[in-house]
Amino acid sequence: MLNFHRLIIGRPLRTEEAAHEKLPKWKALSIFSSDALSSVGYGPEQIIVTLAVPGLLIYGYFGYATLAVITLLAIVTLSYVQVAKANPGGGGSYSIALQNLGETPALIAAASLIADYVLTVAVSVSSGTEALVSAFPALIGWEVSINLVVLFSILMVINLRGVRESSNVFVWPTYFFILGIICLIGTGIYKAFTSIDPIIPSESLVRQPADWAVVLLALRAFANGCSSMTGIEAISNGVPMFKEPGVKNAIITTFCMSALLGLMISGISFLFMHYHLLPVENVTMLSQLAEQVFGRGWAYYYIQITTMLILYLAANTAYNGLPPLLSIMARDSYVPRYLGEKGERLGYSKGILLLSLISAALIVLFNGNVEHLISLYAIGVFLSFTIAQSSLVVKWRREKVPGWVSRIALNGFGACVTGIVVLVIAITKFTHGAWIVIIFIPTMIYILKTIHQHYTTTAKQLRISPKDFADHLQIHTPKNLVIVPISGITKVVAESLRYSKSLGGDVIVLYVYTNEEERKIFEDKWNNLNLNMPLRMLYSPYRSIVQPVLGYVSELEMHKSIYHYITIVIPEFEPAKLWHRLLHNQTGWILRTLLILRENVIVSTLPYHFKE
Amino acid sequence: MLNFHRLIIGRPLRTEEAAHEKLPKWKALSIFSSDALSSVGYGPEQIIVTLAVPGLLIYGYFGYATLAVITLLAIVTLSYVQVAKANPGGGGSYSIALQNLGETPALIAAASLIADYVLTVAVSVSSGTEALVSAFPALIGWEVSINLVVLFSILMVINLRGVRESSNVFVWPTYFFILGIICLIGTGIYKAFTSIDPIIPSESLVRQPADWAVVLLALRAFANGCSSMTGIEAISNGVPMFKEPGVKNAIITTFCMSALLGLMISGISFLFMHYHLLPVENVTMLSQLAEQVFGRGWAYYYIQITTMLILYLAANTAYNGLPPLLSIMARDSYVPRYLGEKGERLGYSKGILLLSLISAALIVLFNGNVEHLISLYAIGVFLSFTIAQSSLVVKWRREKVPGWVSRIALNGFGACVTGIVVLVIAITKFTHGAWIVIIFIPTMIYILKTIHQHYTTTAKQLRISPKDFADHLQIHTPKNLVIVPISGITKVVAESLRYSKSLGGDVIVLYVYTNEEERKIFEDKWNNLNLNMPLRMLYSPYRSIVQPVLGYVSELEMHKSIYHYITIVIPEFEPAKLWHRLLHNQTGWILRTLLILRENVIVSTLPYHFKE
Repeated sequence: MLNFHRLIIGRPLRTEEAAHEKLPKWKALSIFSSDALSSVGYGPEQIIVTLAVPGLLIYGYFGYATLAVITLLAIVTLSYVQVAKANPGGGGSYSIALQNLGETPALIAAASLIADYVLTVAVSVSSGTEALVSAFPALIGWEVSINLVVLFSILMVINLRGVRESSNVFVWPTYFFILGIICLIGTGIYKAFTSIDPIIPSESLVRQPADWAVVLLALRAFANGCSSMTGIEAISNGVPMFKEPGVKNAIITTFCMSALLGLMISGISFLFMHYHLLPVENVTMLSQLAEQVFGRGWAYYYIQITTMLILYLAANTAYNGLPPLLSIMARDSYVPRYLGEKGERLGYSKGILLLSLISAALIVLFNGNVEHLISLYAIGVFLSFTIAQSSLVVKWRREKVPGWVSRIALNGFGACVTGIVVLVIAITKFTHGAWIVIIFIPTMIYILKTIHQHYTTTAKQLRISPKDFADHLQIHTPKNLVIVPISGITKVVAESLRYSKSLGGDVIVLYVYTNEEERKIFEDKWNNLNLNMPLRMLYSPYRSIVQPVLGYVSELEMHKSIYHYITIVIPEFEPAKLWHRLLHNQTGWILRTLLILRENVIVSTLPYHFKE
Repeated sequence: MLNFHRLIIGRPLRTEEAAHEKLPKWKALSIFSSDALSSVGYGPEQIIVTLAVPGLLIYGYFGYATLAVITLLAIVTLSYVQVAKANPGGGGSYSIALQNLGETPALIAAASLIADYVLTVAVSVSSGTEALVSAFPALIGWEVSINLVVLFSILMVINLRGVRESSNVFVWPTYFFILGIICLIGTGIYKAFTSIDPIIPSESLVRQPADWAVVLLALRAFANGCSSMTGIEAISNGVPMFKEPGVKNAIITTFCMSALLGLMISGISFLFMHYHLLPVENVTMLSQLAEQVFGRGWAYYYIQITTMLILYLAANTAYNGLPPLLSIMARDSYVPRYLGEKGERLGYSKGILLLSLISAALIVLFNGNVEHLISLYAIGVFLSFTIAQSSLVVKWRREKVPGWVSRIALNGFGACVTGIVVLVIAITKFTHGAWIVIIFIPTMIYILKTIHQHYTTTAKQLRISPKDFADHLQIHTPKNLVIVPISGITKVVAESLRYSKSLGGDVIVLYVYTNEEERKIFEDKWNNLNLNMPLRMLYSPYRSIVQPVLGYVSELEMHKSIYHYITIVIPEFEPAKLWHRLLHNQTGWILRTLLILRENVIVSTLPYHFKE
């Protein structure tokens, strides 16, 4: 078992071995942007899914929605360049908001980010598997199983092994994907302009006159399209990982990523319209497009496989994001402390486990159906965008660094736009799952605050001044009463009694009997031993051993005038073989578990090892 | 929770409250014979199921198989009258075989009986539900759920409540069933002889010439029919529960039961042939017969409901049989000792739980499909018949009571016949599941003997003479080393140190640090306290708290020359609310669990109760 664990996870690493590798721009682009770039695998599709309502002729709004998404992308990019400048030390919306806006906005950002990261894993893994299944229809029906295998045996294991491995494994697929998509777009555009068909067929441009229902649908399509923008904040959170000059390199990388993303979204959307593609079950639209452009040859499979890989990689960015966030929050006492502990491979192993488990639960719950998950997605992303921008407005106003007015203008505008997007998503997609997020975030904030409260009161209860500490130990040595429940005259009992005598307190031996005959026999045996130790016999009318002992201890607790502590010595059998445990009753264990609930009652477990 | 438990199970009973009610014959007949009589609900049907092979015209062998079964019934009844005479003290094949034939035959009988009882529950509950579903087809598809509800919320609960309730609840349904079946047979026969149709239609008499395949089928049909005979041993095992004169009353009751059973089997089989009934999915054949005779009126539903009730009752006889058998075997150390302990209602509660769980597993595994279960059934029953008869032959030969020769003849003949039946079933149904029993029984015997062996060696290892016991305690008081791992200067630590000082041994305080800075800060704090207690600082390169402590203890164990015991004091936090546990790491628990594995290392758990 241990060896298997070592084989999978690797030997433990010493604290001194922590890596502080700095990334060149080309490597950072790949590592930080897989989440954002991969979203072209589902973003444009999500717009069409909303618009392709049977009977309604509103496909033409697709172009507008795409344009709106790309404009928004430009605004968010410019705002996030400011974030990178403001946070050369890294740290996401949560840290910025905690410094500039206070606890509640920071927790809103944290809750959004947590939801976002978990959904990133669930959505990206599911979408990656959809790309795979589109190419190999034989896999239809196995989606959830494939998702879970990818989640637990690839993503979780690689991340438990630690950070350094991830950078090497994860650099190339992003570039393969970019290359593939650019070739796809180039070939598609070339074919579009050289074919005799119209470049944009008229059915791709039909727009019913805009009544309220149509506007709602168009806005909802835009809201869905906003899911393309997830992951854009990754670079500005990771500034310290860039080679010097970090801020400048991060900004260049951000622009590169956004440009690529914008290019890919517009190209793919154009081609969707050119071919007038519509959603088909079990086949992603990117897969349809690749088939239209390349036919079902090696180029098609190249697109599908690289799409799958980058989507799985995108899930990996959440593994790079959530556990560190949780560790910062653990240091601030908003989540359980142990989430801040580094595991044996120096990763935040408990955070990695937690992320894997929750994502798996979501995948199983939604049966690997991406659309349902995306409904829950974009709102959290934009909420954290808005909070980050607003924090910066406050920061610039306070710090008044050179050029603070234009910075405020830029981030203020960004905050307004992303804030409006939050409202648009919340309203248009309220019945499509946004309500879950709207319930989730306040609930999370309540939970996070309650946890914080608990740690505060715990710390208060544990606190003691050095003087009180020393005084507590100086007062007269406390008197100890030792109780030994025994079941007969055996070697184990002899050992228990011997140990009890070594404890330097008064010893009482307890024997529980269930009928008079048994009592007499034992009393005779005991008296023959001439031990000069007080024996107390307890009658158990209901044949339980545990109840009379508990009752006796309660009685003592009530009357213990001269004793400070009651110590109960309970032997624990350590059988030679594991299955032997099944053959012994668990009286010792039950007694221990129940006695620990009593104050000032100490349970001493004396192990007795059987040889065979 | 506790109140719910009390409501369902009832208040605990004192040992003195054990009931020793004696049963009159009419009550005993009902209680002991539900298993045997209920088998007319599936026994004759099982014969036809085997013979109704499409294309083969062998329905006519049905009559012969039924005759063979009834003859066998007569022989087994006569033999079991001898068992009742031989065992006025009660006790089944296992006890008789252990006294007369030795360990292995007794364990064969025990394994057969265990399999038999478990299968009785699974088969009877499933068949009862089939009767119900035949009457109410809306329930089709819910069979397994109904089975589990009956098993856990009726049978298990009633039996956990205790024996006395069972006798009152369970007397009447048997008589209602007998009445119903006798009316059914009477009406059916009257109709058969007054109708213009032939009494036995020619298609019920067709018999292909007997080639090997046909003989095999006919024998297999007979083997299936033998399942009607299960439960016939119940009366002779329960002689002590009869009113005086017990043996005589038991014998009369046995004859009554067998006569009733024979009458019902032959009547039902005759009517099956008269109507030429064939198996139909989701409708039992008894249900078909009742519908033919009575039409679908109240009489039909009466038959179905009473059939259902008596089949559920039959499952209950296994609850009366297996837990006491296991308790006898527990006293002989062949099964875990705690199976011999009486629960709070004076029933063998752990045996009752075990039986419920295993039966439920079988029902789920076989998806409530009775035929598959019956395949596994009859062989165990007849194996235990054979062993009981053989034991009696040995007993009569040894004791030479008056009339021993004729008794040997009777039981010897019984043993031969039932032994042959075992062979017939094993061969003809080998591929239909009998192989499972043939693997199960030797495996069980191996397990039972291994358990016995374990208890023997355990007892040997625990045994100590009174002199050695006293000597062990007389030698010089053992020296105790107390180790207190601490994590800072808190109230809990103050309490741990105070308790440690009360133990009258040398105290060492342990502190685990993960970096040099941490070490210095703590060292300064500690030195300022001026406690005059030795502090040992341990470096943890891999950040684990547990490993360095374990390593230090191992080191001490190797060098402990002057200490007999090493006691480790670990505080256990008792948070004010249960969910608070989730917020604290389980270092204490892990440390305790791993340290208990060391010999001579005692773990003392000091509870610290948080107030809020």
